[in-house]
Amino acid sequence: MNKQLDKLQEWLVKEELDMAFINEPNTIAYLSGYESDPHERILALAVFATEEPFLFTPELEKGDALKSEWPHAVYGYLDNEDPWSLIAHHLKSRKSDLNSIAIEKDFLPVGRFEKLQSYFSAGSFLDITPKIQSMKLIKTPEEIDKMMEAGKWADRAFEIGFNAIKEGISEEEIVAEIEYHLKKEGIKEMSFETMVLTGDNAASPHGTPGKRQVQSNEFVLFDLGVIYNGYTSDATRTIAFGEPSKQAKEIYAIVLEAYHAALSAVKPGITAGELDRLARDVITKAGYGSYFTHRLGHGLGSSVHEFPSIMQDSGFVIQEGMCFSIEPGIYLPGVAGVRIEDCVVVTKDGCKVFTHTPNVYTSI
Amino acid sequence: MNKQLDKLQEWLVKEELDMAFINEPNTIAYLSGYESDPHERILALAVFATEEPFLFTPELEKGDALKSEWPHAVYGYLDNEDPWSLIAHHLKSRKSDLNSIAIEKDFLPVGRFEKLQSYFSAGSFLDITPKIQSMKLIKTPEEIDKMMEAGKWADRAFEIGFNAIKEGISEEEIVAEIEYHLKKEGIKEMSFETMVLTGDNAASPHGTPGKRQVQSNEFVLFDLGVIYNGYTSDATRTIAFGEPSKQAKEIYAIVLEAYHAALSAVKPGITAGELDRLARDVITKAGYGSYFTHRLGHGLGSSVHEFPSIMQDSGFVIQEGMCFSIEPGIYLPGVAGVRIEDCVVVTKDGCKVFTHTPNVYTSI
Repeated sequence: MNKQLDKLQEWLVKEELDMAFINEPNTIAYLSGYESDPHERILALAVFATEEPFLFTPELEKGDALKSEWPHAVYGYLDNEDPWSLIAHHLKSRKSDLNSIAIEKDFLPVGRFEKLQSYFSAGSFLDITPKIQSMKLIKTPEEIDKMMEAGKWADRAFEIGFNAIKEGISEEEIVAEIEYHLKKEGIKEMSFETMVLTGDNAASPHGTPGKRQVQSNEFVLFDLGVIYNGYTSDATRTIAFGEPSKQAKEIYAIVLEAYHAALSAVKPGITAGELDRLARDVITKAGYGSYFTHRLGHGLGSSVHEFPSIMQDSGFVIQEGMCFSIEPGIYLPGVAGVRIEDCVVVTKDGCKVFTHTPNVYTSI
Repeated sequence: MNKQLDKLQEWLVKEELDMAFINEPNTIAYLSGYESDPHERILALAVFATEEPFLFTPELEKGDALKSEWPHAVYGYLDNEDPWSLIAHHLKSRKSDLNSIAIEKDFLPVGRFEKLQSYFSAGSFLDITPKIQSMKLIKTPEEIDKMMEAGKWADRAFEIGFNAIKEGISEEEIVAEIEYHLKKEGIKEMSFETMVLTGDNAASPHGTPGKRQVQSNEFVLFDLGVIYNGYTSDATRTIAFGEPSKQAKEIYAIVLEAYHAALSAVKPGITAGELDRLARDVITKAGYGSYFTHRLGHGLGSSVHEFPSIMQDSGFVIQEGMCFSIEPGIYLPGVAGVRIEDCVVVTKDGCKVFTHTPNVYTSI
């Protein structure tokens, strides 16, 4: 029996809610062990305070759901059937008077909500998003093990990428090399589109790799991660190819200092806002504050971006077992884009990083 | 000026709506020309009946939005700012009395809707999903050209994949080969996770490629597509490696007949339901009806699954310029999984397919 599902059921009992209706595939995987991307079709998990939960899947996925670790009922629907009348039927078969229903307000589209509501017009609907966020927030030792493994795969990706760097190779060719070797070695999916940006192209924090070729004496920025056993990694390295300009190297040194300022302060009790401030102060004092245009970091786990946000002014208190990124950057158009990122798990008195590729840039 | 945006504005005027609030990234790209994956951050496009539209982006994406083909205003927000008070401010600056607002009920989460509603509590909210669906439905010649190109890249992917087949190579290694060469040749993204399934593994219509190795005398199923210039392709081929069993070959012949029954009937005026029935009848009469567990096909364009659904009992009337898949399949556990899929554009008196890899299975 899945422990997370048990916890959710206990919460429903405590909050005197009849059921939770979940439609976000990542949360369904977290609670049921069944992973699936249903595209535009509906995939739903119904969890009740006291009745047996069920999965509701497209008919063509039902076989996979039955073969998964999910031990409870699975109901399918054909493409030409109205899924909502079937969902309502199965829900009412479990419990005829469903009055208080928890939904994911961050993920349930208005149209689906209106469909659900039409069958339970007397029901009251409460947001389960904060509860799911808090459940995912503190990782178990098993989850941390998986994230450590995912982090090692990011190290492997850096190794492949660094080895591929040579004069004239394009950003997209380096991406192809990294993903090819990882897929051959058994990684099915990256956490997000692998980012390899050269020189000035890296001055956009969310730039897109293209045909730009590696040139001597500039930085190459790698931002990447994998999904391993359902858990994600996310890390960034900025590597010198030859000898970047004096200002580019100055920027690198500032970002590295900002990174260490935050990393060394991570421990239970500090706030997310303080961590952001420690890194941001370094960059601001060096005169580049307006070129650090994003928050310091974000939580991650079974999805690559999750609660909490490590951002300015946040009073959110860091606790043992939380996992998040630390990723200061300076993006100076015409000069360079530098970001350094590691994800960490908070320990009793500090933190451990998931990736170990050295963060001192080396000229390749 | 983007023609689609013009059309949407005309529609707002005609329907006497003040504005449309769009938050689905694919639709934002369709209307603005600005492509972005904002992850959990908010990206929004505000289109008014009479005022200038604007894009609202995370600050770290603002530079890319300004450099895109979008000619109108772009407003950014920092990670530690409340995006909703800023959105409300910008909306009210355009027009102080916004009363009727169109939203995407299929994509706007309940939580975001409630935020928006809190600033426009007297407003009425209408669903724009059907209008966006119908705008995307009939492709322009420029869109069809892009889809033809995307289709050619699927042919290229099949070529790479077929060449990779050999005794002992695993499904995930073939996937790695396909994506490696495509990325090296300039394809940034696949339409969906490339599927290569061997033998019995293909008997799950949405199976996952793994370590299973190609063995002699079985089928290998490839389902794949690319995104090219913002448009998608999607095609499936089932290829014999050696000599599959008699029943596996029989299944192949039935699926091929079902495919041709539907393909040859595509023309303006036929209904989606009739197309599904033509293919399904072939499979049902052959005794495999219960192993064809999905609809015949789905629309595609800037996204790989869009309106309409080519499914049983649908009275939806096919028109010139629509693009959709035809993909009958039979999934018989323990024996084989066979699917044949092409996407087509409807012409004046028939259809054209986007992929040209022969659909007669050849033993490799």
